[in-house]
Amino acid sequence: MNTRNTGADPGTLNAGTTMLRLRRVGIDTYRENVAYLHRDCEVYRAEGFQALAKVEVSANGRRVLAVLNVVDDSRVVSPEQLGLSEQAFAQIACAEGERVGINHAEPPASMELVRRKIFGERLTQDDYDAIAGDIVENRYSKLELAAFLVAGGQMGLDRDEILYLTRAMVATGERLDWDESVVVDKHCIGGVPGNRTSMLVVPIVAAHGMLIPKTSSRAITSPAGTADTMEVLAQVDLEPETLKHIVRHQRGCLAWGGTARLAPVDDILISVERPLRMDSRGQMVASILSKKLAAGSTHLLIDIPVGPTAKVRHMEHALSLRKLFEYVGDRLGIHLEVIITDGRQPVGRGIGPVLEARDVMQVLENDPTAPQDLRQRALRLAGRIIEFDPDVRGGFGYAIARDILDSGRAGAKMHAIIEAQGRRSPRPEPGALVFDVHATTSGVVTAIDNLLLARLARLAGAPMDKGAGVDVHRKIGDAVETGDLLYRIHAQFPADFQFACKAAAGGSGVSIGSPDEIERIEFAD
Amino acid sequence: MNTRNTGADPGTLNAGTTMLRLRRVGIDTYRENVAYLHRDCEVYRAEGFQALAKVEVSANGRRVLAVLNVVDDSRVVSPEQLGLSEQAFAQIACAEGERVGINHAEPPASMELVRRKIFGERLTQDDYDAIAGDIVENRYSKLELAAFLVAGGQMGLDRDEILYLTRAMVATGERLDWDESVVVDKHCIGGVPGNRTSMLVVPIVAAHGMLIPKTSSRAITSPAGTADTMEVLAQVDLEPETLKHIVRHQRGCLAWGGTARLAPVDDILISVERPLRMDSRGQMVASILSKKLAAGSTHLLIDIPVGPTAKVRHMEHALSLRKLFEYVGDRLGIHLEVIITDGRQPVGRGIGPVLEARDVMQVLENDPTAPQDLRQRALRLAGRIIEFDPDVRGGFGYAIARDILDSGRAGAKMHAIIEAQGRRSPRPEPGALVFDVHATTSGVVTAIDNLLLARLARLAGAPMDKGAGVDVHRKIGDAVETGDLLYRIHAQFPADFQFACKAAAGGSGVSIGSPDEIERIEFAD
Repeated sequence: MNTRNTGADPGTLNAGTTMLRLRRVGIDTYRENVAYLHRDCEVYRAEGFQALAKVEVSANGRRVLAVLNVVDDSRVVSPEQLGLSEQAFAQIACAEGERVGINHAEPPASMELVRRKIFGERLTQDDYDAIAGDIVENRYSKLELAAFLVAGGQMGLDRDEILYLTRAMVATGERLDWDESVVVDKHCIGGVPGNRTSMLVVPIVAAHGMLIPKTSSRAITSPAGTADTMEVLAQVDLEPETLKHIVRHQRGCLAWGGTARLAPVDDILISVERPLRMDSRGQMVASILSKKLAAGSTHLLIDIPVGPTAKVRHMEHALSLRKLFEYVGDRLGIHLEVIITDGRQPVGRGIGPVLEARDVMQVLENDPTAPQDLRQRALRLAGRIIEFDPDVRGGFGYAIARDILDSGRAGAKMHAIIEAQGRRSPRPEPGALVFDVHATTSGVVTAIDNLLLARLARLAGAPMDKGAGVDVHRKIGDAVETGDLLYRIHAQFPADFQFACKAAAGGSGVSIGSPDEIERIEFAD
Repeated sequence: MNTRNTGADPGTLNAGTTMLRLRRVGIDTYRENVAYLHRDCEVYRAEGFQALAKVEVSANGRRVLAVLNVVDDSRVVSPEQLGLSEQAFAQIACAEGERVGINHAEPPASMELVRRKIFGERLTQDDYDAIAGDIVENRYSKLELAAFLVAGGQMGLDRDEILYLTRAMVATGERLDWDESVVVDKHCIGGVPGNRTSMLVVPIVAAHGMLIPKTSSRAITSPAGTADTMEVLAQVDLEPETLKHIVRHQRGCLAWGGTARLAPVDDILISVERPLRMDSRGQMVASILSKKLAAGSTHLLIDIPVGPTAKVRHMEHALSLRKLFEYVGDRLGIHLEVIITDGRQPVGRGIGPVLEARDVMQVLENDPTAPQDLRQRALRLAGRIIEFDPDVRGGFGYAIARDILDSGRAGAKMHAIIEAQGRRSPRPEPGALVFDVHATTSGVVTAIDNLLLARLARLAGAPMDKGAGVDVHRKIGDAVETGDLLYRIHAQFPADFQFACKAAAGGSGVSIGSPDEIERIEFAD
């Protein structure tokens, strides 16, 4: 192609010649790079940038992609300044007042693949690698992340695509190597309040001597994640080196997984899943397996609770999800087993960090009033994990786990882990504002609505307010008389308290009837 | 349910008791309500709000839903203030410094329906009414809007759902009534640069005496919309009353549709479609028909251009889209006809507002150098619309349209409309920075890449920079010699210019070969 150029020579034109002064804008945009230009800024007016358009900010050879926000307030940025949100400011790594350039930018190249996904196409391993690569470099806006998540919602990803996405998420982060042949982990897909078995399984399995470096997330849509609950007892945000040291000495830990750069794409996706309350099958499998693989696990037990108000409501869905986990897990080279459990009602008594931590410690201390359902579930799971040990005879895991718990060795291990991570003291108390919900009829508890109780606990302030939550006093099968206490709501702050009380007034979520109305679930194992 | 409440009485607890001082934060969040709290704000710390969570801000009995952003910079908001973005500030309608409350809020109720849509369910008319109702009240965050759009992408909505959505979008806005039995309109689905037939059809049809109150959008993903191009000649952002007055006197107008509250949900959705570059079939049909119905049209002609680089690439897709338009249009009670046209290359010569306005005026002025393809298309479309007139014999429309154009009556009508809307003078010039692209071989032009030429025009600065664009000198079927000028890029600003030139260096987009390589399309009508 011959070209004649009557303007400047495009080859030597310097992009971003109009320079602005960098300003740090202290707005936490929650993992989105945002650039702020004043509406009267000459560059904005001249270059015709559009709101929400992609721009590239450059300084000292570094380039950062950001979404443009237009500002009319000189207290945020003046017309001579270019503002960057906290995360983008950190990435450009320049001081305030330094000269920066700004240019039009194209959306990340891999958005074209996302668009193909929206239109129903199947993507390849290379495609998912490209998408994960752009996401981990913060090139996706929140809108683009939402588009990717929704495009892959429910039926959007087939099992090979889930495998590709998982691999891509592992490849774009760090990967731990514990240099042992058996590194175990467990994960529950969630949906059942109070199901804090990890805090029992880890000390039992670690006391048996197996390596179980458990990192957990904070709650996304539930009233408490394992990290939230463990935080009642000990520090959970540990530097990667500290965490490794603890695991080597204690054989286990109960830490928050966010500080290590393990599958960081997952964390970025969660930042959009959370406000959208999205939790699709494909994303769930990719999220769980990428974190575990990156954390160096070789053996993994997945717990899928089933019940009418659990995340998985029918046995056939649980079995199909199990097959999906097995398919992806096998191809990732991880030894994976799936256990399907009773998810018809909350586990233990407490819902919310402080109340759940109390239940866990009662079980570890062999307190006779400890919730037996939590104890039994934990022993069953710990037993299955202990059988990953090549030296343990098949079927003997449960008895070993029970012996470790009953002997007090699990409790001692838990205290050792708490000390190592940094004990929190004094332990926070349940919220002082309480509201009791009583039975209005007599009979037997036939069902408990997991969703409603979880919602009450969240409205009451959990997980941010550690002491907020719900304490359940009657479980399925229990006989009740009119006026008996069904559960108690705890809160600390009046506004939260009011929200929770109002919601409870709409219905207790506890069904009372005759024993034959209790739903039965046939478990395969 | 008996309740015992040992805290405050939830019935009398006053939500939002912790009051903050309202602050207007001059950030244009582009149709998203955002609330800003300082990280050290007591309410934020105490109530455990999460970033990107929904909050309800209340003052003087008004309530506004917003997305929470956390701020570390007291110049944006101090710990005693609650900031609201421009749009949210306007909605709460309070002065700065007044006391406002903030509370946790649930996502809009209809997001549950969106979630069901994501998971593949079919929604009802009531569902779409609920969604449109929440969107028009600004209860959706950008993320939630993106989720809704992507969930309905391509195969997501069936034809009844598109009908429901269209009805819901009409119902949530104002609706014009022109009090005439025939109110005509036309719409092209786009994808072919330079296709500015509306600016010819309106004066021809209005000169014939039919009512054609044409409102257009600005470009979403193209280098120019009709509103952008008309704006080169006249004011297009007219108050609804002014617009009605002009239409009554001139029988037509060429205005921007954004000032009237016609199908406002569509405008809100477009604010997210634009940065995502989403343009799905269902959204397109709903968007076009809701606007036309709300604008009071009784008769509508839809133009679907087909070509290998047009929006619709195959005749079978055009026919299927035609059926979809007919299905929804019939049920909305609008007389709708669809015409499928040649979309293999740009129409006319200019791409970009100033260059396209020049082409239009050349045709209206019967300039012998005017682009004949633009003239022929406009006559064909205007002819079909004129046949909506019950007094016009079938098949006579084209001749009537040609007579109106050739006699100068269309040109006179256009000048009358320009004067009525407010003439822009002087008319802006094409951008002074020019870059010529020449043929590197001899032969016949066999194809022109609409997408590439549109992209070059956008990179050069169109539509925001009116004079930016591409001027095409050779069209399909034209003979060319090596070195002949194929097209010229115009720009005003060096950075844009450089972007466009760089992109053109990757390939001209004009294919040269032998005449038998030209793609033929069989048109049904």
